[in-house]
Amino acid sequence: VIELLPVAGVPRLAAGDDLGAALLHALRAAPHGLRDGDVVVCAQKAVSKCEGREVVLDDVVPSARAIELAGDDGDPRVVELVLRESVRIVRRRGHFLVCETRHGFVCASAGVDRSNATAPGRAVLLPLDPDASARALRAALAPLADVAVIVSDSFGRPFRRGTTGVALGCAGIAPLRSYTGLPDDVGKVLEGTEVHVADQLASAAELVLGPIGGTPAVVVRGASYPRSEEGAASGLIPPERDLFRFSTG
Amino acid sequence: VIELLPVAGVPRLAAGDDLGAALLHALRAAPHGLRDGDVVVCAQKAVSKCEGREVVLDDVVPSARAIELAGDDGDPRVVELVLRESVRIVRRRGHFLVCETRHGFVCASAGVDRSNATAPGRAVLLPLDPDASARALRAALAPLADVAVIVSDSFGRPFRRGTTGVALGCAGIAPLRSYTGLPDDVGKVLEGTEVHVADQLASAAELVLGPIGGTPAVVVRGASYPRSEEGAASGLIPPERDLFRFSTG
Repeated sequence: VIELLPVAGVPRLAAGDDLGAALLHALRAAPHGLRDGDVVVCAQKAVSKCEGREVVLDDVVPSARAIELAGDDGDPRVVELVLRESVRIVRRRGHFLVCETRHGFVCASAGVDRSNATAPGRAVLLPLDPDASARALRAALAPLADVAVIVSDSFGRPFRRGTTGVALGCAGIAPLRSYTGLPDDVGKVLEGTEVHVADQLASAAELVLGPIGGTPAVVVRGASYPRSEEGAASGLIPPERDLFRFSTG
Repeated sequence: VIELLPVAGVPRLAAGDDLGAALLHALRAAPHGLRDGDVVVCAQKAVSKCEGREVVLDDVVPSARAIELAGDDGDPRVVELVLRESVRIVRRRGHFLVCETRHGFVCASAGVDRSNATAPGRAVLLPLDPDASARALRAALAPLADVAVIVSDSFGRPFRRGTTGVALGCAGIAPLRSYTGLPDDVGKVLEGTEVHVADQLASAAELVLGPIGGTPAVVVRGASYPRSEEGAASGLIPPERDLFRFSTG
């Protein structure tokens, strides 16, 4: 049995707030508490806001390129932020850009998002180093329990509509579990069977986090996962191995 | 709080078995039971095997095209099955094919998989109509409770390694929940915010189902989801709207 337990009672967060301390406080008061082996999945928005990764759009001076890409119906200030966060534009439809971020994530608008900022007229950026964010939260929760931490976001995908949860940062958990070389239920040796456990945990948590009125974090209890300090990057396909990153296949 | 409850005690399944009756029997005996509003996520492999969607590889006569695509290290019989299940090869690396299935899913090998067949030397195909499979299971469980049913599989994705859960078939649940037009937590109206709830439920369930030694089904209790009979196809991006399906973008 796996349980998804929302972390209730965390006050609204803003730049400079100590998210780890806020979660520790809330979890100390929570009836479900925190136990060794739990996975704490924390929403990227909460992490980014506390780390000051929020920009007042009126302070952004768009480049000529951003103005061009924004066209008639885009916001050149937002496009400017997207370009600054990107190492590559992977696909484009009008001012909608799918980008590769400095971290290596491929996602809409390089993760730049105007929703659920601390105030209207602002945009929230992804954390600079989500693994470091996860490690800091893990350390902050260590007085309560030895847990794994995932900083999660919701990304769209090719082929399928809607977003699902993804792990931007990991601490104490490996993104992937490999079954390659193990026998299946009838004894056939599995080939190339690899599960993105951290993304599945993030997707499970997003059922509770949601884009509106959710909590900033969820405790996942009872899940089996591989322990590791390798971080989230090992869960990404390197660009040169990816069949979909470049528009001419 | 959301709970993921494995459905224990289901015997090994084979062609012609009544999966709905087997789940009903197991759930009648389960201490957690089944309640109105639960989501039952059932593994595609179990559904396919009971529906006879399994092929003895020695019975497959590969076409010239399959032999060519299989090359030196692929199995032409498996490639032949992949081609029969596909309407389009989306990407290819050697004999590894990413295909669009007749249902519209884009996935590795058109979902053809040799692991966890009822015996070695066989391959399991996706159900012909996974929504119909989900509806049949839902009807079979109706004497116990009014639930939603998802037939789930695990797919790889561009950009990110490893598989995560996806909903192949849905009954009693809409794949997507839209938040577009609703105010976020600071009053900004959300634009184009759409969550693939069914895939997130499938990913959560895959934490329990797993590729080895898992149960064929998981009960998800406490999740909020939109009720609908529309089926899984509304969760897919139509080919002409997809930025990644065709190799020349």
